[in-house]
Formats: sequence, structure tokens, C-alpha cells
Amino acid sequence: MQSENRFRNLSPLDHRYYLANQALFDRLADILSEEASVAQCVQVEAVLLRHLVSHVLREDARKEEYLEKIRDLPRRVSAGEVYREEETTRHNVRAIVNVIQRHLPQEIQHLVHLGATSVDILDTAAAIRYREATQQVVVPLLLDLQELLIKLAEDEAETVSIGRTHGQYAVPITLGFAMAEYVSRLGDSIARIAEAAGDLRGKLAGAVGAYNATSVLHPDPEELERQVLADLGLAPGEHATQIVSPEPLLRLLLEMNTAFGVVANLADDLRHLQRSEIGEFSEYFAQGQVGSSTMPHKRNPWNAEHVKSLWKAFSPRAMTWFMDQISEHQRDLSNSASGRFVVEYVAGFVAALERMRSIIERLRVDRGGIERNLREGARRVIAEPLYILLAAGGVADAHEQVRRLTLAADEGQGELLELVRADEAVWSTVSATYRRLTGGDPEEFFADPSRYTGRAAARTRRICANHRERVAQLRKDSPS
Amino acid sequence: MQSENRFRNLSPLDHRYYLANQALFDRLADILSEEASVAQCVQVEAVLLRHLVSHVLREDARKEEYLEKIRDLPRRVSAGEVYREEETTRHNVRAIVNVIQRHLPQEIQHLVHLGATSVDILDTAAAIRYREATQQVVVPLLLDLQELLIKLAEDEAETVSIGRTHGQYAVPITLGFAMAEYVSRLGDSIARIAEAAGDLRGKLAGAVGAYNATSVLHPDPEELERQVLADLGLAPGEHATQIVSPEPLLRLLLEMNTAFGVVANLADDLRHLQRSEIGEFSEYFAQGQVGSSTMPHKRNPWNAEHVKSLWKAFSPRAMTWFMDQISEHQRDLSNSASGRFVVEYVAGFVAALERMRSIIERLRVDRGGIERNLREGARRVIAEPLYILLAAGGVADAHEQVRRLTLAADEGQGELLELVRADEAVWSTVSATYRRLTGGDPEEFFADPSRYTGRAAARTRRICANHRERVAQLRKDSPS
Amino acid sequence: MQSENRFRNLSPLDHRYYLANQALFDRLADILSEEASVAQCVQVEAVLLRHLVSHVLREDARKEEYLEKIRDLPRRVSAGEVYREEETTRHNVRAIVNVIQRHLPQEIQHLVHLGATSVDILDTAAAIRYREATQQVVVPLLLDLQELLIKLAEDEAETVSIGRTHGQYAVPITLGFAMAEYVSRLGDSIARIAEAAGDLRGKLAGAVGAYNATSVLHPDPEELERQVLADLGLAPGEHATQIVSPEPLLRLLLEMNTAFGVVANLADDLRHLQRSEIGEFSEYFAQGQVGSSTMPHKRNPWNAEHVKSLWKAFSPRAMTWFMDQISEHQRDLSNSASGRFVVEYVAGFVAALERMRSIIERLRVDRGGIERNLREGARRVIAEPLYILLAAGGVADAHEQVRRLTLAADEGQGELLELVRADEAVWSTVSATYRRLTGGDPEEFFADPSRYTGRAAARTRRICANHRERVAQLRKDSPS
Amino acid sequence: MQSENRFRNLSPLDHRYYLANQALFDRLADILSEEASVAQCVQVEAVLLRHLVSHVLREDARKEEYLEKIRDLPRRVSAGEVYREEETTRHNVRAIVNVIQRHLPQEIQHLVHLGATSVDILDTAAAIRYREATQQVVVPLLLDLQELLIKLAEDEAETVSIGRTHGQYAVPITLGFAMAEYVSRLGDSIARIAEAAGDLRGKLAGAVGAYNATSVLHPDPEELERQVLADLGLAPGEHATQIVSPEPLLRLLLEMNTAFGVVANLADDLRHLQRSEIGEFSEYFAQGQVGSSTMPHKRNPWNAEHVKSLWKAFSPRAMTWFMDQISEHQRDLSNSASGRFVVEYVAGFVAALERMRSIIERLRVDRGGIERNLREGARRVIAEPLYILLAAGGVADAHEQVRRLTLAADEGQGELLELVRADEAVWSTVSATYRRLTGGDPEEFFADPSRYTGRAAARTRRICANHRERVAQLRKDSPS
Repeated sequence: MQSENRFRNLSPLDHRYYLANQALFDRLADILSEEASVAQCVQVEAVLLRHLVSHVLREDARKEEYLEKIRDLPRRVSAGEVYREEETTRHNVRAIVNVIQRHLPQEIQHLVHLGATSVDILDTAAAIRYREATQQVVVPLLLDLQELLIKLAEDEAETVSIGRTHGQYAVPITLGFAMAEYVSRLGDSIARIAEAAGDLRGKLAGAVGAYNATSVLHPDPEELERQVLADLGLAPGEHATQIVSPEPLLRLLLEMNTAFGVVANLADDLRHLQRSEIGEFSEYFAQGQVGSSTMPHKRNPWNAEHVKSLWKAFSPRAMTWFMDQISEHQRDLSNSASGRFVVEYVAGFVAALERMRSIIERLRVDRGGIERNLREGARRVIAEPLYILLAAGGVADAHEQVRRLTLAADEGQGELLELVRADEAVWSTVSATYRRLTGGDPEEFFADPSRYTGRAAARTRRICANHRERVAQLRKDSPS
Repeated sequence: MQSENRFRNLSPLDHRYYLANQALFDRLADILSEEASVAQCVQVEAVLLRHLVSHVLREDARKEEYLEKIRDLPRRVSAGEVYREEETTRHNVRAIVNVIQRHLPQEIQHLVHLGATSVDILDTAAAIRYREATQQVVVPLLLDLQELLIKLAEDEAETVSIGRTHGQYAVPITLGFAMAEYVSRLGDSIARIAEAAGDLRGKLAGAVGAYNATSVLHPDPEELERQVLADLGLAPGEHATQIVSPEPLLRLLLEMNTAFGVVANLADDLRHLQRSEIGEFSEYFAQGQVGSSTMPHKRNPWNAEHVKSLWKAFSPRAMTWFMDQISEHQRDLSNSASGRFVVEYVAGFVAALERMRSIIERLRVDRGGIERNLREGARRVIAEPLYILLAAGGVADAHEQVRRLTLAADEGQGELLELVRADEAVWSTVSATYRRLTGGDPEEFFADPSRYTGRAAARTRRICANHRERVAQLRKDSPS
Repeated sequence: MQSENRFRNLSPLDHRYYLANQALFDRLADILSEEASVAQCVQVEAVLLRHLVSHVLREDARKEEYLEKIRDLPRRVSAGEVYREEETTRHNVRAIVNVIQRHLPQEIQHLVHLGATSVDILDTAAAIRYREATQQVVVPLLLDLQELLIKLAEDEAETVSIGRTHGQYAVPITLGFAMAEYVSRLGDSIARIAEAAGDLRGKLAGAVGAYNATSVLHPDPEELERQVLADLGLAPGEHATQIVSPEPLLRLLLEMNTAFGVVANLADDLRHLQRSEIGEFSEYFAQGQVGSSTMPHKRNPWNAEHVKSLWKAFSPRAMTWFMDQISEHQRDLSNSASGRFVVEYVAGFVAALERMRSIIERLRVDRGGIERNLREGARRVIAEPLYILLAAGGVADAHEQVRRLTLAADEGQGELLELVRADEAVWSTVSATYRRLTGGDPEEFFADPSRYTGRAAARTRRICANHRERVAQLRKDSPS
Repeated sequence: MQSENRFRNLSPLDHRYYLANQALFDRLADILSEEASVAQCVQVEAVLLRHLVSHVLREDARKEEYLEKIRDLPRRVSAGEVYREEETTRHNVRAIVNVIQRHLPQEIQHLVHLGATSVDILDTAAAIRYREATQQVVVPLLLDLQELLIKLAEDEAETVSIGRTHGQYAVPITLGFAMAEYVSRLGDSIARIAEAAGDLRGKLAGAVGAYNATSVLHPDPEELERQVLADLGLAPGEHATQIVSPEPLLRLLLEMNTAFGVVANLADDLRHLQRSEIGEFSEYFAQGQVGSSTMPHKRNPWNAEHVKSLWKAFSPRAMTWFMDQISEHQRDLSNSASGRFVVEYVAGFVAALERMRSIIERLRVDRGGIERNLREGARRVIAEPLYILLAAGGVADAHEQVRRLTLAADEGQGELLELVRADEAVWSTVSATYRRLTGGDPEEFFADPSRYTGRAAARTRRICANHRERVAQLRKDSPS
């Protein structure tokens, strides 16, 4: 049953994307696979049992021996054994309980799972699972990506390039400034993801969340819950029904999806900046790599496309999470299957992050393309400073005057700057105002687009410095 | 690399739902796995190559020998070999091409893939894949479910039960009539799914869909495409870019999602009709089965909940399909990953259908519950015929009069029927009108709710007869 | 209450997009507004009442007088009066019924709405509403757009331009061929939208769909339903509960969303083809129009952006429709509000279609840009025919050989064609094969990219001819 | 153009839901309508202009007079005038600028909008808009609802009722405990919504976010931005392109959608608890109110259904927000239309909150139904304490033993408690263990289900106390 040809799997995550990210996905499997899920449940049962033995058998001579056996449980219970048992019970947690009992001395078998409902185990295990996946894989990978972005932004902080809005030349920026956008947006999201992972909750409150069973067993069932969860590094929520409130996990996932959107935006930018006509970046292309099976010349931005595509595949799953907020009365089970696919979401997000990391790591800046586009754009983008200076010089309809000159230039009557100079009234106002406001030389200014990049370089450096520090802090705070 | 512990997989489809549906998912793996996907590509390449050899080497003495080698290809090319080759090419179809070449005589190696672009192979293979999955698994399973629903509806065509709107007792129906709703809605969808699967399209039109390459190779490249696709049981679309138009597959998937919604509605109905307070149905419960790990008395409608949950997991993926309609210019690759997850959708839909099939197959009708609810409801639901008869007797504010009597009944002034009888004017109109319109006895009528089920039984039988015939027709037309 | 400043509205549809599309939205308001909705309900009630009067009072001397009064109803009942009545009933259809009664002679008041449940009226009115909106506004607008696309495709059927995949130069196509893609995809969708609108269903089957009430009133309640609906141009579904099956409307909306996706794809193509660096198209720009409030030179593709943005706003609403398939038992009311927003969807789709129509109507083809890009691309895209000819000449690793030459060209060792010529073995095979296969001159072929456009022009013309005919047929079949 | 019949509107928000919530929607229109949007833009322009005049004309004798004129602007510029101007400019912000200039003295006209790009104004105005809508309408309404929920939970903290999982009787809780779930979940969300509204950002960074224009005008353009935004109660983001980073607004909306999910869950609970067979609650029904146009006895939970339906209509719009994160390069305009519909979302959320508030305010607890269900449930739910006590008494297969007894009870062999008593070994262990663990009398315990509600009442009171305090704090912190 268990030995399988990986290519017989159905999910791309379990064949293609596993093979493309083997080391990374092996780490994910340690946390997110069904094997890991069973182990997490066993871990929760073991901690609960430890507390029950310590409480109920606190005066039993063999207590330490029992505790030793319990410590050994995770090593001995396998997913396979649990699944075989489930064929009888048709209830996954009851199957785990039965198997655990089999591995323990008769004297403590009755205490296994006592006072707990299945979901106490399952939801607490899920909190462990998503906290670990976030802290051990997602956040470290985000920080790696972030450091590469910071480095790129800093390296190119002064590289002047043409800014674009609506896909049209706007005014100049620097390449680093364009990257600093992603440093800033992603940086915010990383911190929030880390925080949300720390806010996940466990539970040991029984069938309807009111501690009905543990109230019979223990003088302070809420204290028992706190102790068990504390041993697992978790805290209880303020209220639970049979299930932990869905919102803490929902918020973690929504913030991941927010970060995914930022990464998808970066992917789109990189895709377009690699267009044949634009050519400001190119993805790494290996020596033997083929771009097209029929067009030997193709070097496609397939990695950026892949990231965008993963975003399209996974982002809409947010709708499932919102639907899973609704659970009737003290719970219905209609999140049983849908909840299991959260594992896929995390894996899909990780695959996209890793791909983006590898893109940025080896991204080639095509300086020729950047300069060509800047030069091409510069001829027209001086329209903004012309208007600003003309208006600052007191001309109320400055925008309209310059707009008409750009139309004239478009119609081939000459370069915009020539047309402006030809209009003495305009040019004298513009140049005088420039001198008055900046003390500089208008000729030099209009000759060199890098003089019209405002605070692009300075802000880039400030943002990078801030996020270097935040990355360092997050690495330091990291529990892994 | 390929021998794996199934429990290390990430997708629930590749561990838990595989294990719950092993035979069924093995059939899916034959069509939808990565192994199958490679095989489908090899099949397309082989058919293309056969045509190229037949055309280019039509006078070559060894032609038949070559064709024999080509026929043998599918047996010889494995997914593992292709993936190893892809480590160099980083291009999946080029990897397939290289591997195929290796398995062929030198003399025809140059003809492999000639004139095709990768997507000619991939999209044609995808058409094969989803058509086969639909025709060989999805539709047969839908027809099995449909037959069970028809049988249930017919068996219970006369079983009077209380109808409900807004969760409130409305007027009586029959149990079979409630099921006939699903027979009718699902039946429509099955036929449309089968039709949409037949409308999937392949392509052999090259890098941008204009037959640039094949126009050089072949005097009638469109005829070449038609012949290659015909051998695969497919037809070309009216237009293609690098990719087949996304809409034929989109429409198949949307119709599956429509059927999924119908099945989810049925699941919700069954969930609620199993509520402790309602108890009109119960799911099969095996002898050793456990309903709750802590509440030994529980018999939960967990299968219906599971179906609903799968719907929540998969239904929102429709948004991905709509996003994948957008591909820039002659294509961008941003559907590369997202398109692969269509396989998961089909598997999730199949898992839900199979679960619903097994629910209906062993569903227990709780006649005691049905009668109790009908009896309870009957006391109040006579309000509608009272109003109808009073109005038909010429009373303009009949609705308001009866409404006030129901309020009086609610306040405990007596049973509604008693209050009506006590109002001589009302009762004489009601009873006289009933006699006039139906020729029947009003006393009998109001004593027996089954006399107020309108055309429920008759329509149930008509719908069932219609869909029995449609099922038979679809089975007959089935290519499998 | 009713006289309002339009700018106080909340929905952009009711201020900004209304003002941008005033004539069109006035036609929509005639069909989709709340005023129209009340009128449609009154229309359904009137037809039902006509049949009841004809049946029940078939021998009444004043029958014709009553029928005359009924015919006059739509003119006399206003939405305002209905809303005032609803303040008491808190039930919208009961309010309509009460108001209708007030406008009729005492003798037939009791027959108003008799036998019907509210949803009989509401769902039948909705079928009228969406059928009319589709037939009178959506389809005509789609056909107008389609005709403009056909004209553009035909006009530019021979205009050679560079094809792109992954945003990279691929091989040449023609501009018309690129537009023919949309003609073909949209054309399919238009026909399906028209068909789905014709498949909408009405109902007169009562509170739970079993004709409970009308069975008491009429000897053949199904025949009564057929007659009433026939007078409204509709047919009943095979089964109904309290509501009409959701699927017929769902399918109409899904097909609209499919067409919306095609239009969004076209919008994206146009956006990118207007990029500063690409410049193959430009949207119409009016004389006084401003592109940016601060950059006087900007001419943005804001109309194409607007269409894309409307798609992002409306496309995800499909998820609501899928959720609205689920209605518990014979119905719950949880589609009451969500169903009302379908009106918004249709209006949003119409706004997008109208904007796209106006873009295409005045789209400027920038021939200079097309030629520049084609020239630039041509230097590299000959890699495909080189590989095809080399392979067709019997070289098994032709792709790899040409790929290496393109790398050499990229590294600046010379133009690709020169490098090929320099390799005598390669060039002699290529040129000989070209001569053998086509009878043409390889020098001429490689000098002129228009010789490598395959079937682009021919297919364009064929597709356009087909869809001209389909447009004509749909216009002829049109009920409006 | 502007005087309109409200019933001619298309959006249900602008007719039906406006009329159902007139006072509330009038407050929304003050903030969210197009009129308000224009006013917010004028407000931003005015503040910017004030700073420019103070800086540029700091020594001008008429400075104070100019500032006075600027202060007067909002009163003088109307949406209608702006829209008429836009017919020429086809650019909404340029239209606002032109109109503002007209209302000012010639001497400062040139300073209007100087240094700003349109989006500086629009995005800053949007931050004002959504912050005000949240702080002045959404949060106060949430707090009103929360207080009603707290009161209900406290009032019913001790009312024992049956708990349900999977729609099946589980073990007892209290009614207050069931409500405390929503107090806790909603309370968390309210605080986060308030916080996210405070985190919205404005901007004055120009066409590409690099302060290109203001760098020419002002020695410290970032300080100018801070000052302008501070006067509007806002702060700049760490980075901007042409647009403010989408994430702050996205996070506010996602948290609203999270709260919407909690409210939808409550709505579903209330719907089901009003089912005819359950009857634990009923919505207020007015004296003349009609439940069904044909079934006079119906009292439907139509308000709870309405809330659920609004959730289905609005929740999927989250997908639009995620798509709107992606804006190419320094921005594309593809969020122009989609962004405008955020206004609708807020209005839809507000309509749902108000409806839920009115439900809770007048909700009737049906004590008869609660007791009936509890009594019915109690017979079986003692299975859990029986198992717990048997296991705690040392019996390893306690669950299985009790499970078999429940099956025997189900088969009619007697009441579960009788069967347990009949098995002396079981009963003696159970009763002895109960005495040992609790010191209580097992007879009393099993006779009274309220003894098996664990910590339900205590936790309810604690949660309510906590959230009363949080509500008070939020009211105190409230800026309105």
C-alpha cells in the first residue's frame, strides 16, 4: 500500500513540484504530510496523557516508568498502523487512540485521550503544524528572498531608469527604487506572518468547548488545558466550541495570501521588464536550457510566469477559508476535507517563494535596455518638470500649455524641449523659476534625466536600512 | 527518487483520499497522474511522427519498420526517464522529444516533433486527458449516482412527508418528490458534461497558431492537423494561438462545478434531515464505527458533511479557470502551474461523487421521523388550503383572515382547524368551495395531509421515467 | 423619498457608470431597475389573474370588463405604492398583491395571486428580466462589438506583425490573425449566451413546487402553468421546488462571465500593445483630453484598463452564483439578497462591452510601431524555420545546433543568418531543403518575414466569413 | 441629470437596501457617495494648496485672504460642476482642479494641485473615506451589536440547553455560552478593524512616488507630505509608487470580511435554531407582517436568511481585492473601476450588521423548545460522562463498552441509563468513580443535565466581562 511510484500521484505538488524543490519539500513533508500529521496528533495525546498520569496516578510507584513509555510513543506509532486501525473505527482519532493504547501498559491505557474530544487533538496538532511550517520554512524563505531584494535595491539605488504608469513612460526613477517597493511591502507582510503564526491557538475543552468531561476529571480543567498547551508551546483561545475559533488560522493564511499577492506583482513586473521590446532584466538561463521546443532562439521569463501561475492557482482558495468560518452550532464537520487542503496552500506558497528567490538570486540587469528606454523616454517625460516650473512661475494654465506642446511634438513639429525653447515666454519662465527654486542650471537639468529622480535613491537606501534591521530582528526572534 | 511512502505526500488526494477510494483513484491515476500525462504526450508525438514518416518517407523501403517502432514507443518511454532528461533541458516537452529520439532509429529521429510546438503536444494531450477522465470515470460515476437517486425517488414517490421552506413547515410533499429535484437537476448536468467532454479540442498549429512551420513542411498543414487529431479522436478548434482556446475546457469544468453544486445541495439537505430533532434519514453506520472519540452515542452524518466540505475546497477553483482565460498575445505561460491543478479538481469532484453514491446506496429512511414531522406540521400547514378555499369562495381578504386565525392558534387559543370550524362563515365557505371545486369531502381532506400533495407523486414518476431513459441513452452513447 | 441627487448614490453603477453610459443604462433601467422589477411582477400577476378569471368566471357576464381592468394594471401600479404597502406587510409580493387588489373591482380581488406562491411571481419575473436584458441589450451590444472586430480582422488580415509568446518575439503573424482569435472565441460565446437566455424557466407550481394549491383550484394545474408561462414567452422547468432550478440562470451567467474573460483578455492585449516600447495600437484621444494631471505628455490606454478593471470587479461574483445553487429542502431564502445583485453583474458586463466597443471603433493602428517590432524580431525569429528546414533535411539534433547559433548571436558574434551562412553544412542543408519542399528561393524567404506567416491571412478570412454569417443569423433570430 | 426616481437605480444598495436602512445609508452617503468622494478630493486639494500658499507666498500681503478663500472651497465645489468639466477633460482629477481654479483668485490658481499627481489626491481621499466610514459607521454599529450579544449571553449564561455537533445532540451547554462564542470572535475582530482603519495611508509623492515634482518645488518634499497628511489626520506609507501600497486597505477589508464571516455563522445558527423542529429562538414578527403570500401560518427567519445572503453576495469580492494588489510597474490603472466598488462592499457589510443588530435586539428565546430539546437529548448524551467515569475508573475499553450500550438503546432494548444500571460491573465503577472524583451523588448527577455543563456559565461571564471592557475602551478611543 505504501510503496509508490511518485509519478502515479495526482497532485502536481506530489510529483512535479516535489521534484523541482526536493530538499525544501522534504522539510515540508516533515511538517505537513499525513505522516507528520499523525505524529503531531500522537505528540498531543502524549502530552495530555503525561499530565493525566501525573495527576491521576500521582502516587503510583510506577509513575516514572509510565512516563518513560509515553515519551517513547512518537517513535513507535506509525501512520500506516493508524490507517489500518481506521479501517475498523472509521474515525481517525479513535484509531490513533486505539493504536496508542496498544503500545502502552494495561495500567494506563484507560487514561489515553481521557477527557479530550477528537478535535482537541486535531486542532491543537494543526496549530503546531502551521506554526512550525511558518516558523521553520515560510518565514526563513521569506527572509532569504527579502535579503536578496534588499541587496538588489541597494546595488541599484542610483541606477536611473524610466518610471512607467499605465505601461507608458512617466518620469525617471531608479531601479533600486522600483525594488524598494517590494522590500517595503513584503517586509511588512513577513512581520505580520510571523506574528500570526505565534497567535495560533490550541484547545483541550472537550466536545462542545465547555470542559464538560474534564470538569468531572480535574478540579481546574482550564488550568489543565493551559498546562498541556504550554508544554506544546501554545495557549488556549478565549472561547472554543468543539473547534478552535477559525479566525487565528484564517488571519495567518490571509496574510500569506497578501504576501503572495506582493510576490505575484513582482513576478508580473519582471515578466514585462523582460519583454523583447523592453529588455531591462533577464532571468538566468542555463547552458543547455531550451526556451521553446520549436523556436531555438527563445529565452522566456518562464520562472516569473510560473510564480504568477502559482498565485492564480492558490490565491482563490481564500474563498474556501472564508466559507470554513461557518460551522453550525458547536461545530459541523463541513470543514473536514476543506481544512486538509490548507496544507496544499502552504506548499504552493512555498514553491512560489522559492522560485522567486531563485529568480532574484540570479537576475541579470540589462543595462543596455535600461539606458535605451530611459533615453527614449526622456525626450517626453520632461513635460512634467516643464509644467511644474511654468506653473510655479505663476502661469495658471501651465498644464494646458505644456499639453499642447506635447501634442505638437507628437505630430512631428519637433522635439518637446525645442518647441519649449522656441516659445520665449514659456522658456524664460521655466528657466527663471528653476534657477529661483533650486539655484541650479536649467540647461543641465533638462539635459540629464537623473536630475529628475527626486528622492528615489535616498528613500531606497532608507527603506533598505530599515528592512535589513527588521530581517535581523526576525532572524534573532526566530524559534528555529 | 520514485519509491515513496504514500504518507509522506502533501496533498490529501495523494494519501487520505487515495486510500479511501483506492480502486477509483487508481483508475484516475491511469489518466490524470504525471505518468499518464507523459504517456499522453508520447502518444501525441507518436501519432504526429507516424504521419510525418508516412508523408516524408512515403517511398522509403523501411517505412513499415519505422512505423512499427513508433507504435512501440508508449511502452518504452517512462516518466522517470523524461524527468531525468528535463534536468538538462529545463523544458518538459523538449525532454520528451529527446527521450523519444533515443528510442528510435537514427533515420527518423529528425522527424520527431517536427513542425510542432510544445503546446501542440501538451494541449492535445490535455484534451485527451480530460475527455478520458470525463468519459471513463466522471460520467459513469454520475450515472451510477443518478440511478440510485432515481430508484430512491421512485421507491418513495408516494411517501408523504412535510415540505419545508426557510426551514419551516410549509405544505406536504412526498419523499420521492424531494429526491426527484436532484434527479432532474443532476440529469441535465450529466448530459451537458458528456457533451462538453466531446467538445474538447486539440491542435497542431505551431508556435503562434498560424501553421508557420507546418506550412513549410506540408502542402496542406490544416489537413495534416485534422488527420493527426482525428487519429486521436479529436478535432481542431476554429482558431488557436500557441494554445488551444481555453473556453472548451473551461465550459467542461464549469459544468462539473455546476453538478458539484447540485450534489452539495443534496449533501446539505441530507445533513439537515439527519439532525437529531428531524431524523428523516440516517447514513449507514458500520458495526464497529465510532461517531465521536468521546461521545459514544454519536452517529454523525459525516459522509454528507464530507461531500459539502469537498465542495467548499474545490468550488472556488473556478476563479482560477476564469483567470486562466487571459493569456497575453499569442500566449503567456502564466497558466503553466495553475493549469496543472485542474487534475486535482477532477479528482476532488470524483471523490465527492463517489462519497455521495455510497451515501445514497445505503441511506436509511427513518419512517418514524417522517411521520412524526408530518403529523406535527399538518396541524398548521392546512392554513394554505384554508386560505385557497376561502379566497376561491370569493373572500378578498382570505389570506388576512386565515393569518389571524393562525396567530390565535399560536397564542394557544386552540388548534387552527378548530378555530376555523368555530367561525361558521369561514368554515361554510371553505367546505362548500372544496365540494364545488373537487367534488370531495372537506372533512376527509383536512384529516389527511396526503390529500394535499398536489402532483408530487405523478411528477416524481414522470421525472424518473425521463431520466431512466436519458441514463440508458448516455450509457449507450458512452465511448468506454 | 424618491427624488434624489444621483451623486448621493453609493454604487458606481448608479452614478459614474450611469453617467458614462446614459442612453445604454436607461435601457438597462427599463429592464433591470427596481421599478422594472415591480412592473415585471405585476405583469406576471396580471397574466395569472387573466387565466384565473377566464377559468373561474368563464360564465360571468362581466368577464370582459374584468379582463380589460387587468390589462390596465401595469400602467397603474407603481413601485412607490408597492414600497409604501410593504412597510406594513414586510413582504414584498404580498405588498404587490394588496396594491393590485386595490386597483381592481371587488368581484375579482379574491382571485389575485390565487394559487401562486411569491416565488412563482418573483422567479418568473426574473426569467423575463434576464431574458430581456440579454436579448435586448447584451446580445445586440456583443454583436456590435463582434462586427467591429470582424472588420478590424479583415482589414488587417494581411498586415504582417510579430507574434509573441511569453512576451518574447516568436514568429510572424498578421494583425488580423491576432484579432481573429477574439472573433472566434467571442463568436462562440455570443451564440451560447443567446441560447442560454432562451432556456430560462418560469414557474407556477406553488409553495413547494408540487402544485398543492393549484391542484385544488384547477383540474390540470400543470396545463395552467404552461398556459400562463406561454403567455409570457416562457416554459416551466422539469422540476421546481418553491424556486425555479438555479441552473438555467447560472449557466447564462457563467457564459456571460466566459465572454467577459475573452473581452478582458483582449483588453490586456491592447493595454500591452500600447506600451511606450511597443506602440502597435493607440486608443482614441480627444482633443481636450488629459492623460495625467501632472504629466502633460501622457496618453494612457485608460479605456482598456477600465475594461480589465471591470472584469476584476465582476468576475469573482461567479462564486456567489455557485453558492446560491444551495438552497435547503424546498428552499431557504438565503439567496434573497445575493440574487438581487445579479442585476449589477449584468450592468457591469454591459459597461465593459460598451467600453470595448468604443475602443475598437476608434482604435488607431500604429503601422510604424508594427514595422519596427517586426524588423527587430525578424532577425531572431528565423531560428524556427532554420531548425525546421535543417531537421527536415535529416539532421536529428537540428534544434540543438540552431539553439547554439542563437546563443552565439546573442553573445554578439554576428547576426543569426550570417552565422548560419557561415556554417556551410548547415546552410546548404537548409537551402536545399527549402527548395525541395517549397520550390521557392531560400534567399527571398529569409529576407522577408511575411513569407513565414503560414496560414495566418487565410484563416483570418475564413473565420471572419463564418462569423459574419453567424452575426447575421443571430440578428435575424433576435426577438427584439 | 441629477434629479432621479430612486426606483430607477440598478444597485439594490441604491433602492431596496437604502430604503430599508434610510438613516444609516444617509450617513454612509455622507462618506461613501460620489458627492462625498468629490468633496474629499477637494478637501485634500485645499489642504495641499494651503501649504503651497503658505510656503510659496509666505511673504505675500494677501496670504491670509487667499487662505480664507481656500477654506471656503469645499462649500463651493459641487460634484455636478466637476462632472460637467470632466466631459471636456475626460480626467476626473484634472476636472476637479479646473473647477477649483475657477473658484479662486487668479493669483493662486497656478498653485492648485501643483506638485501632486492625481492619485496623490485620490488615494489620500480614499484613506479619509474608508477611515471615516469605519470609525463613524462600521465600528459604532459593531459595538452596538456586540453590546446586545453581551447582554444576551449574560442574561442566558445559566440557561442550560443541548449542545450540538454535526447537527446531533452532543452534551449540554448554556445558551449564554453559545452566544459567548460570537462575543469573543466578533470582539477580536472589532478591535482589529478599528486598528486597521487607523493604519490607512495617504500620499503626496507624485507621479511615480519619488517626489520628482515636489523635489523641484520644496526643499524637503517628504516633510511637505507629512505636514499635508498630518492636517488630514493621516501619515504617509514607507514607500509609494504612483499609488499608496494596496495592503493597508486590503487588510482593513479582509478583517471586515472576517467579521462578516463571524456574523454569517451567527446568522446560520439562528436560522437553524428557528427550524420548526428545533424552535429555540424566534425572530420578532410584527403585527401585520406576512410570512408567505400563500401560506398564512408561516413565520420565517427571513432576517437571518437575509444576513447570510448578503454574506454570499459580498464575501467573494475579496478575490477582487487580491487581484487589485497587482499593479504593473509604478502603477497600471486596472484597479480604477474595481477599486470604486469597495464602497459597495462597505455598504453591504453595514446592511448586514444593522440587520443582525435588529435581530438580536428583538430576538425571542423560546424556552419551551430549549427544554424539550434538552430533555430529549439528555437521554443519550449521558453516554459521555458514563464513558469518562468508566475509563477514569480504570476500564481501558470504556468507550467501546458504552458505545455498545448506546447501540442497544438505539435498538430499543431500553433507556441508556437503565441498561447501564443493569450492568452491575459498569454501574458500580461509574458511581464509585463519580463519588471519588467529585464527592457528589451519581444519582443526582445523571438525573440533571445542568450538572454536566462544565465551565459553560463561568466562561460566559468571564468573556462578557472582558468584552464589556473592550467595548467601553473602543468607545472611549473612538475619534467620532
